[in-house]
Amino acid sequence: MSEAMKIRPRVLAGFRDYDPGQVRIREQMMQKIQAAFELFGFDPLDTSTVEFLEILTGRKDGWDQTGLYMLDSSLELPPDRGREDIFWERRIALRFDLTVSLARYVAANIQEIPKPFKRYQVGKVYRAEKPQEGRYREFFQFDADTMFAPDVVADAEIVAMMVETMQALDIENFVVKVNNRKIAEGLPAFLGIEPRLLDELLKVLDKRDKIGLEEVGNELFEAPERGGFGFQNSQWELLQQFIGVGGTTSERLLDAGRLFRGIEVAEQGIKELAQVMRYVKALGIPDDRWEVDFSVVRGLAYYTGPVFETVLTDLPEIGSVFSGGRFDNLVSSFSNAKVPGTGASVGVDRLLAALLKLEKIQASTTGVQCLVCWMQDEPTLALEVAAKMRDAGINTMVYSGEERSFKAQLVRAVKHDVPIALILGEAEERAGAVSVKDLRTREQVTVMREDLVEQVEQMLGA
Amino acid sequence: MSEAMKIRPRVLAGFRDYDPGQVRIREQMMQKIQAAFELFGFDPLDTSTVEFLEILTGRKDGWDQTGLYMLDSSLELPPDRGREDIFWERRIALRFDLTVSLARYVAANIQEIPKPFKRYQVGKVYRAEKPQEGRYREFFQFDADTMFAPDVVADAEIVAMMVETMQALDIENFVVKVNNRKIAEGLPAFLGIEPRLLDELLKVLDKRDKIGLEEVGNELFEAPERGGFGFQNSQWELLQQFIGVGGTTSERLLDAGRLFRGIEVAEQGIKELAQVMRYVKALGIPDDRWEVDFSVVRGLAYYTGPVFETVLTDLPEIGSVFSGGRFDNLVSSFSNAKVPGTGASVGVDRLLAALLKLEKIQASTTGVQCLVCWMQDEPTLALEVAAKMRDAGINTMVYSGEERSFKAQLVRAVKHDVPIALILGEAEERAGAVSVKDLRTREQVTVMREDLVEQVEQMLGA
Repeated sequence: MSEAMKIRPRVLAGFRDYDPGQVRIREQMMQKIQAAFELFGFDPLDTSTVEFLEILTGRKDGWDQTGLYMLDSSLELPPDRGREDIFWERRIALRFDLTVSLARYVAANIQEIPKPFKRYQVGKVYRAEKPQEGRYREFFQFDADTMFAPDVVADAEIVAMMVETMQALDIENFVVKVNNRKIAEGLPAFLGIEPRLLDELLKVLDKRDKIGLEEVGNELFEAPERGGFGFQNSQWELLQQFIGVGGTTSERLLDAGRLFRGIEVAEQGIKELAQVMRYVKALGIPDDRWEVDFSVVRGLAYYTGPVFETVLTDLPEIGSVFSGGRFDNLVSSFSNAKVPGTGASVGVDRLLAALLKLEKIQASTTGVQCLVCWMQDEPTLALEVAAKMRDAGINTMVYSGEERSFKAQLVRAVKHDVPIALILGEAEERAGAVSVKDLRTREQVTVMREDLVEQVEQMLGA
Repeated sequence: MSEAMKIRPRVLAGFRDYDPGQVRIREQMMQKIQAAFELFGFDPLDTSTVEFLEILTGRKDGWDQTGLYMLDSSLELPPDRGREDIFWERRIALRFDLTVSLARYVAANIQEIPKPFKRYQVGKVYRAEKPQEGRYREFFQFDADTMFAPDVVADAEIVAMMVETMQALDIENFVVKVNNRKIAEGLPAFLGIEPRLLDELLKVLDKRDKIGLEEVGNELFEAPERGGFGFQNSQWELLQQFIGVGGTTSERLLDAGRLFRGIEVAEQGIKELAQVMRYVKALGIPDDRWEVDFSVVRGLAYYTGPVFETVLTDLPEIGSVFSGGRFDNLVSSFSNAKVPGTGASVGVDRLLAALLKLEKIQASTTGVQCLVCWMQDEPTLALEVAAKMRDAGINTMVYSGEERSFKAQLVRAVKHDVPIALILGEAEERAGAVSVKDLRTREQVTVMREDLVEQVEQMLGA
């Protein structure tokens, strides 16, 4: 085949390969997270990567494909139908998160499922969006959720689990921020605005860090007919009192309680946060690992109770690396059953990038501990030596590439971070010996074959 | 929302969920396989799940979507184009195996990639086929391949790795069967038939176990114009001599060498198998763990040299659970570079089913070791006890469901295989004690809180 006929070995924008070093680093992190989740009694679940469109969108009576990778196969495509029908036959897509699949799984198995159901799931999810720097169309999520759990005790367990997970990753400087959707729901009554404006208001407040408090004020004072809220000075005053609440967790809850007195939904939210405070303390979590922060706004619309974010205080600019909250309407699209739940999701790529920046994870490009280099006509001796290494549990590669020289074989090992090379030269072979080279220190010793395993183990242990 | 408006929580036929017990069993198996692969110097790779159609099919000048799940997103679908263009914009699909992605990855990184490149990959692959009993559209593959490895030494390493993997899984009765594509290529010259008939001939021979030797003979003697091969008695005689080759590996190779004398390609194939024999011996693999079997036909068309299959002798009916071979034209669609390689792929679902049948893997439905049962108004004590358990590394769930009675909480534990329950009754609380119940033996003891961890550890260890 001519070069012009060759196919370019490219990957679609927003998709990626992870080379061995990247997989190893990711797995290192994943294993620690998994162990922390299991310590808190979560079990693994693995759901189908493909879901029906109506399940992903929660809408039976239409479809909105925005952001979804729709799937299509000849089997789902009867050739004799019109365009409209084809669309109906093609109503399957790749999952965009793991929560919808959890909801579908819970609803489908609602009788026999353990209650409470504590599950974690790690997997790739798909978003048909324009890829950006550091934002992929295929990426990992790692979730832990407790379903059939109506009480704040489950929320407190999530907060403690988030703290323990960060500690299991050796992160020292972080804080888990906790708020409650119900307090936000009290804002319209508190400020005297229409309840339907709440989501808009939260959006404006969420921009505070970006645009500054003054600009937030400008947007709120703007007349409604020009897209503002028509705020009065008294409303602005109240809002500033709420935003200004500070001090210890107890003080914050007391102040908020005073401000929202008589607004039932907010009082309930504050009461729940007070419970979180007591329970998290009982779980042995130090006060400085978490805080109540009424400015946590993100995702509030989705949640129904406590919400959680995790900020790395050394890298505040990257945002939350581990977020979640309570969602009590999870299966409402599928069932009339009430399935209250709470949980949190690790931003895998973001957290991994942070761990590398903070040097909390060790880059490792290979798991190969030992390369056997040989030049004989027959590889018999090299294979015997390799078998001996493997019997001792040492990850061993027998050189099997095109290069015949020791030098080239050693370059392969050095370039790709193999720590130890075994050199089977003629002199060594005649003497029943092997030369062992530590490629990190360049130390080289020659030992008898019967002492080889011990020598390599010693170098690897060093 | 009325029940009629609810969405049915179903999964597309051929797709599936793995519940916690199924994930745990699969992971148990996967970890052992992974450790065996790493022992042989393989490193993990993870490629994009989505590939361009031309890469999956190896064809730039057209497309064939048969068996593929094509992908489609609004971003890839400019609204103002005609149908034909839409098809071109939609030329991405889910991978159907891991080998094509390996080829694409190798071709894209051909300069900087380690040589030899030994990689393993585990992941889900997708086939748009009619689902059948035990055959899914989404399923796992687990491959290990050595690229840039021109010599038989790499093939022998694969055979040894296959044997070690089966042993790591505690399987006693298995045999790795080895053949060589090059011997089959000698068959036309050996039998005096046209080379272009080889693939057809192999297909007929492959049916021998199913239809019997006599029926194979009937098909071969059939006249060419009626779809047969027009065999003469002398040709049938020769074929039977070849099929009848038996005895030890050395004897089989000697007999085949005699039969194919002068047929260069077959002689080369036999020479390679003799090398495999010597090298596998040097790697310490006992003779009874593998054999040369000239009847191994499956997948020969795809391969260019040695081929491998693994048969469980207690379950021959399930076919090969671990198969592969040498493929020296892997990147030919993408590059003029020669990238000789060899490897093997585990049939994950099939092997897992076999391990369960052979009772070589322990079913386990949960990783939770301990459920804390409580009835107090406040969960404080339960949370303190849980924190203590977790500090000792014991996977602990605090009951957080709707049931308030101990009985219901204990039922939750028993039904879902949690081995230990801690019962925090009023009497226990007053005495500073906890009742510990081993739910497997129904043994129950009450211990002081400071002795709790030791008691639970002892029961778990038992």
